This record gives sequence, structure tokens and C-alpha cells, in this order.
Amino acid sequence: MRDVFLHAANMTTFGRGAGSIEALAHDAADPLLESEIDRVIVGNHAAELFGDGGQVAARVACDLGLRGIPALRVEAATASGAAAFAAGVDAVGSGRAENVLVVGVERMTHVPTTRALDVVASMLAPDERAVGATPASLAAIFAARYMKTHGLTRERLADVAVWAHDAGARNPHAQFRKPVTRERVMLSSPISDPLRLFDAAPVTDGAAAILLSAAAGPVRVAGLGAATDAPSLLARTDTRRLDGFPVTRLAARAALANAGWSRSDVDVFEIHDAFSILALTGIEDLELALPGKAIDYLEQERTRINTGGGLKARGHPSGATGVAQLVELFEQLTDKSGIRQVPGARRGLAHNVGGFGATAFVTLLEASA
Amino acid sequence: MRDVFLHAANMTTFGRGAGSIEALAHDAADPLLESEIDRVIVGNHAAELFGDGGQVAARVACDLGLRGIPALRVEAATASGAAAFAAGVDAVGSGRAENVLVVGVERMTHVPTTRALDVVASMLAPDERAVGATPASLAAIFAARYMKTHGLTRERLADVAVWAHDAGARNPHAQFRKPVTRERVMLSSPISDPLRLFDAAPVTDGAAAILLSAAAGPVRVAGLGAATDAPSLLARTDTRRLDGFPVTRLAARAALANAGWSRSDVDVFEIHDAFSILALTGIEDLELALPGKAIDYLEQERTRINTGGGLKARGHPSGATGVAQLVELFEQLTDKSGIRQVPGARRGLAHNVGGFGATAFVTLLEASA
Repeated sequence: MRDVFLHAANMTTFGRGAGSIEALAHDAADPLLESEIDRVIVGNHAAELFGDGGQVAARVACDLGLRGIPALRVEAATASGAAAFAAGVDAVGSGRAENVLVVGVERMTHVPTTRALDVVASMLAPDERAVGATPASLAAIFAARYMKTHGLTRERLADVAVWAHDAGARNPHAQFRKPVTRERVMLSSPISDPLRLFDAAPVTDGAAAILLSAAAGPVRVAGLGAATDAPSLLARTDTRRLDGFPVTRLAARAALANAGWSRSDVDVFEIHDAFSILALTGIEDLELALPGKAIDYLEQERTRINTGGGLKARGHPSGATGVAQLVELFEQLTDKSGIRQVPGARRGLAHNVGGFGATAFVTLLEASA
Repeated sequence: MRDVFLHAANMTTFGRGAGSIEALAHDAADPLLESEIDRVIVGNHAAELFGDGGQVAARVACDLGLRGIPALRVEAATASGAAAFAAGVDAVGSGRAENVLVVGVERMTHVPTTRALDVVASMLAPDERAVGATPASLAAIFAARYMKTHGLTRERLADVAVWAHDAGARNPHAQFRKPVTRERVMLSSPISDPLRLFDAAPVTDGAAAILLSAAAGPVRVAGLGAATDAPSLLARTDTRRLDGFPVTRLAARAALANAGWSRSDVDVFEIHDAFSILALTGIEDLELALPGKAIDYLEQERTRINTGGGLKARGHPSGATGVAQLVELFEQLTDKSGIRQVPGARRGLAHNVGGFGATAFVTLLEASA
């Protein structure tokens, strides 16, 4: 495959947006329209269920003035953003496109929160949904098991959220830009025991966009990996199915092999922390730390993990998240991250999960210069 | 780009299916699983709105026993099938995948017909939906205008449906396998004046699957083209916006240029005839006949246009249609179409439309031998 480069990246400020889904996408993508774009790929999880109508890709493309070229939507639940990016890399890599605009977008806050959570939960296995499972209740199972197995205290788990908010406070695009204390996390509303509100990524409106090109640019796609597993936790064959996502391990190994990197080559990480506990299991699934040691690893390395606040503090507009992670890496690798810059960052890894571990995408980016 | 080949193709018998969306996809794809598949791409329009749950790609992949590899869904409304195929071509063409399984699937008959039509209509522009537009009412505008402009009689338009049923009667996979008379079409229930029930493709369950590979196979992808336009008819800039789809013309020209073919090189056509009138405007948008002459062209060439019955008689399971068109071409180009075989067919063109002309994909296939 020929090399594929990221030329530009942008995102909206995450939070409560105003206006249509096209307007959100427009705000993210419009600054990237300088090149002659010959394809638009939209990552979106559930526009129809959010009442935003169908044919999202065509509507986003036309709103940007990009008629007459192919436009399509890619969906892989909460990994729709990374999946759209990967499809864009295929398009440029194959030579079938020269400049591809990848846009991740989701509008969620205009419906009642209970409805928004229902829409997101629709990605779970139908048999688990039928008995009332939600992403929060499944994450709670992970948390309870992890705490018991590894002796992790509830207080230490709260620190994961504290660190995420610390990072969010340094990111002008983040939804949550205020630090929180461990006590604040511990005293927030219970959502699914032992998890509390501040353990969970919020409901968010947002869009993120990246311009991919075959022409040399500041950041190069170094490797991609992705894997799929049964949506139902109990249908998974891996023995770690109740405290991790086997797909993450497979995707990371594939991506690292694709790039020819080892884990120690990576300077900056984006990890899919939809819940605090998933930051820890994600670190272990990525094989950055041994089982039970993720909390120590995260504490030590937290200035280069989820530098933009992660899903937890940046916000988690489902289909936009995977692209927003890559926007954060792009800024880090081009030395544009201001007070949250990882000094000398040259290689980044992003990890985006779909469903509750039914699919994972790992994307590796490298500074060209 | 390296060459991409079709190795195998299969589809379910279209109509009223039994079982889940995974079961439908399984029936189409299972016979294709002999190679080592390294990616699954699912074309699906609206599983969530049809109540079939989310994360369709992961569920389809796992049901087929294909865990551990990337799986994603591509959506472009009623062109989701062709869009998924195009994404598969990118994946193989880029060298990022060797054997890609493309599955188009939609389950529609398990909900009341009015609900199914509502789901399909969700692909229209929100402003047109808000005033009650449906695909049928927009097609009726096309039909009325076309009949007036070109002096096409209602009886002649009925012949389009008659010919589609004639073809369906020769296709064991078609939903409608009985010939109908002009009188039967004329006397069927009005749906949107001047269109009647028999002018419209039915609500259908179905799946179709194709195995793509970089290794040489019996049919080669010769060219692809796609284009996007405003979902709203009135927002389109082309003067033919009320009697054709400008995207079809753009997509066809792009695909033919990509392949280095002229129209006369094509032996067999699949045209997106969701309504009888769209067969005629499609022929003109593909520039096979001059304005007003499509009915004569179709009458003369009908043994090599929509040989499987088209959307009208084969059935139209939204996200499966674009793949089913390519299954029909694969069978024609490998001389396996039995009593509907176009003698010596070597080159085929498929035309798949998303929304009411918001997007079009044109795919060109060629026999390798």
C-alpha cells in the first residue's frame, strides 16, 4: 500500500451543541476544505435512532459543498470514528482516492438522557439487552470483578476520573474543563454499583474531522489493526472476557505488527475510557501493564495517556470519538497541544472500542518530519 | 491499484424470510467461506429502525464464525450494498486485505408495511419528509412530468413492470416469479397518482454476498464510480432534477472512464428500478437512450437489462439490493444464469441509487477468462 498522510485535523468543542447534525459536522470539517477532496467518509453511530434522519453521509457532504463525489457512512457502534478513518486509509491507499475527508459526528444531547443511553445501549447483544444489560451495568461487572481480583480500592478507581478531568482542564475542546476531587467522584450519584456518575463518559454532541491524502503531509498512518468478537460477553471464548476486551489485544498486536513497532515506541496514547474501569482494562488489553498493574502504570504515565481528557472528560459523542482521538494525536505529533503537549511526541496510538468489546480498532500515527 | 476479483457470489431467495438478520446474512454468505477471510463489510440500510438491533457488522461476522478480524458496516441508504462493495474493493485494492466478504442484508417484512415504508422514507431530505414526501410520491412527480413531457402513456409505463415480472419469472431467487399483464398493473391499487402498486418494488427480506480477493478469479472489478447530491430534489442544481438523477450520470461517466469502456461495451445491465419510472429515467441518466426514448430502448434490450427481475420483481431488501445486483452480474458473466443467460455476456454494469437520487454507485464487472 502506498503511504497515507494526515494533512489537517479539527474538532468542535465537545458538549451541548446547537443546530443540526450537518451543522456540527460542518464546524469540524469546514476548515479542512482547502484541498480538492474526492471522497467523504462519515463515521456515525446512530443518527436515525437519535432522530437526526437518514442519508447522513450525503447530507454532510452536500452541506460542505462537496457534491458530485462519493460519500458514504461507516458504522461500528462506538468505534464508528476509527472504522471510518480506516476506510479512508483504504481509499487513499488503494489509489482510488487522493484526498479523503473523514468526519466523525454524533448529536446526542437533544433527546432526554435516558433516551440517549437507550440508543447507545442498542449496540449491545440483543440477548443481553433483553435482560436489561446496559454499558454501565456491564462496566460495573468489570469493575467489581477487577476490584475483587486485584484488590483495587474504590478510591483508587476514582483517581482515574480525577486524572481524566485534570487532562480535560488542559484541553479547550473538552466538555469537562474543571478538575474534580476524589471525594467528588466518590459522592456522585450511583449509576451501577460500584460505578458512579463520574466514572462514566458523558452524553455529548460533537464532530471531528481529518483530511487524508496520498501527498506527503505532517503525520503518516503507520499501522492499523482491528478485530471483532461476539457482542455478547458470555459468548466470548477468551478467558479474560469478564475483565477485558480480547479484541483490543488482537487489534493492538495487528497494528503494531503492521507498523513494525513495539509498545515502547509509542509516545502518546488515546485509550477508550468510556468508563473509568475501561481505562485500566484497556491498558492491560493493550499489554502496557500486567494484570492488576494498570492503575500504577496510568498514574505514572498519565501525562501521555488521554492527554485531551479521554472519552471521560473530552466527552463521548459516539461516532465522533474515534476521529477525535486521532485529532488529539495529530495535534500532539505536530507539537500543537499547548500546555498539554507531550514533549517530543513522535508516535501515537489510538484505541477505539465498539459495543461493549464487540469490535476494536487500533490506529498508529507517526510524525513525518 | 492492484486488480480485485470476485471469486464467488450468492444470495438468498428474496421475499418473506424467517429468522434473524444474522440468519439471513448467514444463508447468503455461508457457502462463500472456503477462503481465509480477513475482513467483513456489511451493507445495511436501517437495521436499528427495523428493530434488528445495533452492531450489525459484528453480529453478522460472529454468526459466520469470523471473529478476530475487522468487521464494519457501510451505509448509503438504498445504495448501502454497492457502497459496501466499493469499500471492499478499496480494502483489497490497498493491499490491506486479501479476501473480503461483502454482505448486503435487510430484514423488512417483520414490521407492518406502513412502518417499513416509513423506515425507508427516513432516507429522504428532512425538509421534504416534513411535508409528507415519500419515495412513491417523489417517483410519482417524476412519472407525471415524464409522461407529460414525452407523451408516454400510462399503458406503456405499465409495460416496464410487465417486463420486470417476465424476468423475475426466470429467476429462482426472485420474490415475484409470476408474469403479470398490462391490465393487472393498470388495475392494481393506486399508491401515488399516476403510480400504482405494481409500479413499485416490494418490501422484502433478503441478503446477498460476494467474496472479493486479490487472487485471480472468474470476474474482475473493471471500474467504479459514485457521486453525491443534495438529498432534497429542490436543492439540486441540475436542470434535470425533476426527471432524473444527476448523480447517476456522474457516477456512470466516472466508472466508464475508470474502466476505459464505452457504453456499447456493456453486455448486461442492472438498473435501480425501485419504481417503473426509475427504470426509464435510469436508462437516460446512464446515457443509454435520449430523453423520452428509454421505453423503446428498454423494450428492445430487455433481455439484457435487469435479467433477474430488477428491484421490481427480484425484490428490494434495501441494503442487500446493491450486492444482489452484482450477484446477478456475476452469474451472467460466469455463464450460470440458466434460462435468463445473456449469451456470451462478458461485461456488466450495475447502478444502485441511495435516497431519492442523493447518491449513486455504478459498478463495472468483467469476465476474466
